[in-house]
Amino acid sequence: MDQVNIGVIGLGNVGLGTLTILAENAAEITQKLGFSLHVEAVCSPSVARKALPAGLASTFRTPDWREVVANPRIQIIAELVGGTTVAREIIESAIAAGKSVVTANKELMALEGCNLWDQAIKRGINLAMEASVAGGIPIHAVLREGISGDRVVALQGILNGTSNYILTEIERHGADFDAVLKDAQRLGYAEADPSADIDGWDARSKLAILAALAFGERITPGDIHTEGIRRISPIDFQYAHQLGHTIKLLCSARRSEQGLFLSVRPTLIPRSTILASVQGAYNAIWVRGAYGQDTFYYGRGAGPHPTGVAVVSDLMRVAREIRAGSPERVSPFAHSRLGDQRPLPVTLQKSGYYLRFRVNDRPGIIAALAGILAEKRISLDAVLQLPSESKQGLPFVITLEPAYEADVREALAQMAGLDFMVEPPLALPMERPV
Amino acid sequence: MDQVNIGVIGLGNVGLGTLTILAENAAEITQKLGFSLHVEAVCSPSVARKALPAGLASTFRTPDWREVVANPRIQIIAELVGGTTVAREIIESAIAAGKSVVTANKELMALEGCNLWDQAIKRGINLAMEASVAGGIPIHAVLREGISGDRVVALQGILNGTSNYILTEIERHGADFDAVLKDAQRLGYAEADPSADIDGWDARSKLAILAALAFGERITPGDIHTEGIRRISPIDFQYAHQLGHTIKLLCSARRSEQGLFLSVRPTLIPRSTILASVQGAYNAIWVRGAYGQDTFYYGRGAGPHPTGVAVVSDLMRVAREIRAGSPERVSPFAHSRLGDQRPLPVTLQKSGYYLRFRVNDRPGIIAALAGILAEKRISLDAVLQLPSESKQGLPFVITLEPAYEADVREALAQMAGLDFMVEPPLALPMERPV
Repeated sequence: MDQVNIGVIGLGNVGLGTLTILAENAAEITQKLGFSLHVEAVCSPSVARKALPAGLASTFRTPDWREVVANPRIQIIAELVGGTTVAREIIESAIAAGKSVVTANKELMALEGCNLWDQAIKRGINLAMEASVAGGIPIHAVLREGISGDRVVALQGILNGTSNYILTEIERHGADFDAVLKDAQRLGYAEADPSADIDGWDARSKLAILAALAFGERITPGDIHTEGIRRISPIDFQYAHQLGHTIKLLCSARRSEQGLFLSVRPTLIPRSTILASVQGAYNAIWVRGAYGQDTFYYGRGAGPHPTGVAVVSDLMRVAREIRAGSPERVSPFAHSRLGDQRPLPVTLQKSGYYLRFRVNDRPGIIAALAGILAEKRISLDAVLQLPSESKQGLPFVITLEPAYEADVREALAQMAGLDFMVEPPLALPMERPV
Repeated sequence: MDQVNIGVIGLGNVGLGTLTILAENAAEITQKLGFSLHVEAVCSPSVARKALPAGLASTFRTPDWREVVANPRIQIIAELVGGTTVAREIIESAIAAGKSVVTANKELMALEGCNLWDQAIKRGINLAMEASVAGGIPIHAVLREGISGDRVVALQGILNGTSNYILTEIERHGADFDAVLKDAQRLGYAEADPSADIDGWDARSKLAILAALAFGERITPGDIHTEGIRRISPIDFQYAHQLGHTIKLLCSARRSEQGLFLSVRPTLIPRSTILASVQGAYNAIWVRGAYGQDTFYYGRGAGPHPTGVAVVSDLMRVAREIRAGSPERVSPFAHSRLGDQRPLPVTLQKSGYYLRFRVNDRPGIIAALAGILAEKRISLDAVLQLPSESKQGLPFVITLEPAYEADVREALAQMAGLDFMVEPPLALPMERPV
């Protein structure tokens, strides 16, 4: 029969979403490909209890992934297990067995993707990972082939839907971080252990992958300066608005003459920018190319069906490569060979800053802070104080003209020791309108 | 030498932009591909007088495109001539000579693209056309592979930068259409003969191509109901704003249970939608998939460098296919076979409407118009009248609840005959917030 055979390992949300699309959208998939995608086997520890979509009810099921990888009829393995232990074993076994692999695994691909692609290319098979970043947005296809002729000079993304949802809720309703997080957990938007989302680790893996695609360097998550959103409070949005800005957990990557700067951190961005309009659980990526200038990509960052579309689109591409005999045609990292340039430390970065303080009010506070800044040759831009009834100390804000992060950090360390300071100052980079 | 050889025919803005990128960005292109793209020959009638980018100064030049197509070293022809006569001859000759083709030619691809792909696939060569629609936005890569697993149910685009620029200027400055057009011509944003842009023909070709990719049907421009922007005046933006809307030359394609609806026409869209924020010469495409839901793509619609990125990215993809021996791997129309479903006539479409009248004021006008609408069983939504000093007759607006275009047209024909009417009513579809 005119078909390519697939084994799907992992039947969580993404696995079931993938199977639903493969079953329901089969006619259109076949019309596009000129042949069909056939699900030969599915696998999960609880496979016996899983309700499969209509049309796949009689598909071979097994709780043992080795049985799927060993099946000689299967040409592509969809690894939808997640994590870095079993998933890695599955992918390496599949490659060793000469099967192409489609994965949604951001964590593993960020850590080991380059090594896995090296293995894959030696075996002449394909490795595809569109679903690993920004669910329904085909940003891999865009960077890998769509705008491959360009030279990316900067890329900014909102890549974690949970933290963007939490920030949007704090902004809209003025509720405290902890209350919004609890609500998000109750609604299923945040995990019981929310650290991966709110501390930026999830976004960091995604940025590592996108930066490798964009810049052709072997970036790993450990290379990326990362801060989470736990300290962002409603008062920060009030100040940000007064400055014409909003606050996003911004994934940022840019080339400078000195080298690459990469970071994941809450950042003040002007409300007039298109990224500022990205609300709730949506993801978005803004790319600046040396030639194509600005492009922008927006969509659902997660969810069984949007992520399933990414998996199925990859399965279709890989199946086409298999049929055409060209599985190693293009690297999932967009570059035939990745370099080993390390990103620069964030301390060398120059940026405007937003500093928010909570203090026990007394005369001389501004003078003391301004004195420290002057000593470091940092120019103060504005001092803002909104009416407040806070009992945790009087909040106010100082914004800085562009300064080196190293100098700002030294100033902050000195400030933290001042006797009127209720808590260490919060410092966020602040972008200018472009 | 480890390279793929290219011949570039046509050295207008896009041709020179393409050569600039190929020359300046050569190191990055080579790092991505693992081999280099070599410009073997360039061609244009005035080739002797053209200043080529540094690095290409000694490239072989000829005014005779046949010499480029006949060159046995050349593997890919970039057709950047435009139009449908010589360009067609070039592409057909290149295919006959067994050379792959990259083109930026929307007009030709909209009219003859399917036939040209049929010829290409018979010869086992590739045909690529990313640059034909929306310059710097890689919407072909997105629809062809990035989200190919999805089933597109609707697509809306702002695909003509000139008309979007003109509408944006009318909106911002309240200037008349004719004055803005003259300015746009002076600034080089509009052609001396502006018809292709402002009457919607350019956008229509682009929508025909995108609809074929999205729906897998052999759509040609003649299938698409098209209206231009000549009748849009500042007063229309004032009314639109009062309704919470703006006006865009909207390219719209959607599947319904009855069939496909395709149109290019000025349309009222809610200002809260992301498409409403697309200003000036930018292009954007919003796609709704049955599974991936909403995605959105934004960037420069034209310009030597953004369009050059599209051409170079296609050259890279086609070069990879040549090296991998898989030139016919994927159709430029995203579907292995296109169907022959014809779009439905626009008269069957149901939509809200914005009707703007200019009348010689006298009692009974609303009664007369409301009477005609009632006769057709069309529900009136609102009547708006802003203060006006217009001497061309008093303008006012009636909005309609969703109605069939056929009924609305009949009502408009009757209204046009009323003695108080200064000019035929202007009728624009009006979208609700989604």
